Amino acid sequence: MKYTGNYVAPTLTVDAVLFQLINNELNVILIERPNDPFKGLWALPGGYNPVGETTHDALQRIVQEKAGINIDKDLSYIEQLYTFDTVARDPRGHAVSVTYMGCGRNIEWTKSEAHTASFAVSSLPKTAYDHTDIIRYAHERLIAKLSYTNAIYAFLPQKFTLTELQRAYEAILVRPLDKRNFRKKFLGLNLIRETDEMKREGAHRPARLYMFNSSTLETLDRSFE
Amino acid sequence: MKYTGNYVAPTLTVDAVLFQLINNELNVILIERPNDPFKGLWALPGGYNPVGETTHDALQRIVQEKAGINIDKDLSYIEQLYTFDTVARDPRGHAVSVTYMGCGRNIEWTKSEAHTASFAVSSLPKTAYDHTDIIRYAHERLIAKLSYTNAIYAFLPQKFTLTELQRAYEAILVRPLDKRNFRKKFLGLNLIRETDEMKREGAHRPARLYMFNSSTLETLDRSFE
Repeated sequence: MKYTGNYVAPTLTVDAVLFQLINNELNVILIERPNDPFKGLWALPGGYNPVGETTHDALQRIVQEKAGINIDKDLSYIEQLYTFDTVARDPRGHAVSVTYMGCGRNIEWTKSEAHTASFAVSSLPKTAYDHTDIIRYAHERLIAKLSYTNAIYAFLPQKFTLTELQRAYEAILVRPLDKRNFRKKFLGLNLIRETDEMKREGAHRPARLYMFNSSTLETLDRSFE
Repeated sequence: MKYTGNYVAPTLTVDAVLFQLINNELNVILIERPNDPFKGLWALPGGYNPVGETTHDALQRIVQEKAGINIDKDLSYIEQLYTFDTVARDPRGHAVSVTYMGCGRNIEWTKSEAHTASFAVSSLPKTAYDHTDIIRYAHERLIAKLSYTNAIYAFLPQKFTLTELQRAYEAILVRPLDKRNFRKKFLGLNLIRETDEMKREGAHRPARLYMFNSSTLETLDRSFE
């Protein structure tokens, strides 16, 4: 059995929401569009996914080409986010985009590429397509993941203080947390352990450095047992 | 700017994993394929998504046509699950499938359609394509959701006993739970409330009926505050 007579597929695209913390703010990497549609507006790194290539492989190739970022090596973590499919999202015709969310530390894009830049999620520029909606959706997913996984590890150095941990949470949740409650609840999750090392932060006395027990994504246990 | 010269899109399809509990077992609805490829094997309800139709609208149309199920009205809950995209999953050519997971109670399919049936997830028949993998993936997602949402409401009647609630959890987790610990932990989540009504179960004394506080999907709070 062959494809039904007149079947025509939508265009398939891939787009990446690449998050990192810069100066205690959640940032996303965008590329200024050199051509219409949306010339001069900012877009997520992404492009066309042709027949014969998986969405991961297409994204890997395109983000490497356009921003010089290797999604397998330069991120702490990447996952498929959602497939956006409204008919009018691309003025050139119906394009369905399989999006990914990647998180990392010190993600470096090609410096020679003048059209790539990092923006705080709280003050995005005017974006192309529905990319602001996609970034908001990714931010909501990330906030949700912080409540049931160890996903925050993706943004932190291997060893970090509890203050750095709290600052990372606050940056993503976009609100201050009470130091005492945060420490009590977070330490109760048994996700991190003390190291023997201390770190001096400003004029304060040295603070203990901690490590995550796992450096891959783990879902917290709530087993009812 | 038009599409790049020779761009050819993969075929786009949609597929639904429709879960319900039958005799305290997690079941999924499958359709026996009338034609090749995979003639006589069982497949998720699904089909081609043409240009100009969203994945939700395509799924709504196809599941109604093939199984007589209205995904908006006959389910308690439906969400986009994942987009499966390996190149060889369809022998006719590269087809990318946007999948959905739907959960409900007493989901009725067209009785005149002899090729639609319900199977326990623990004893699936031989399936077409990668549909067994998709069902396993959906089952894992559902198990994870039970630990941080009220998703179990989708499988239960409006009023239920704590025994019925525990049986539903056990069916999906595929393991027994300790009654005392389960009740203590679940009631501590403040997801359900007592009603004034009682229900007699077999020879036991009447059991209290409970209701969920919300009949839509809610994520449990773990706010660190």
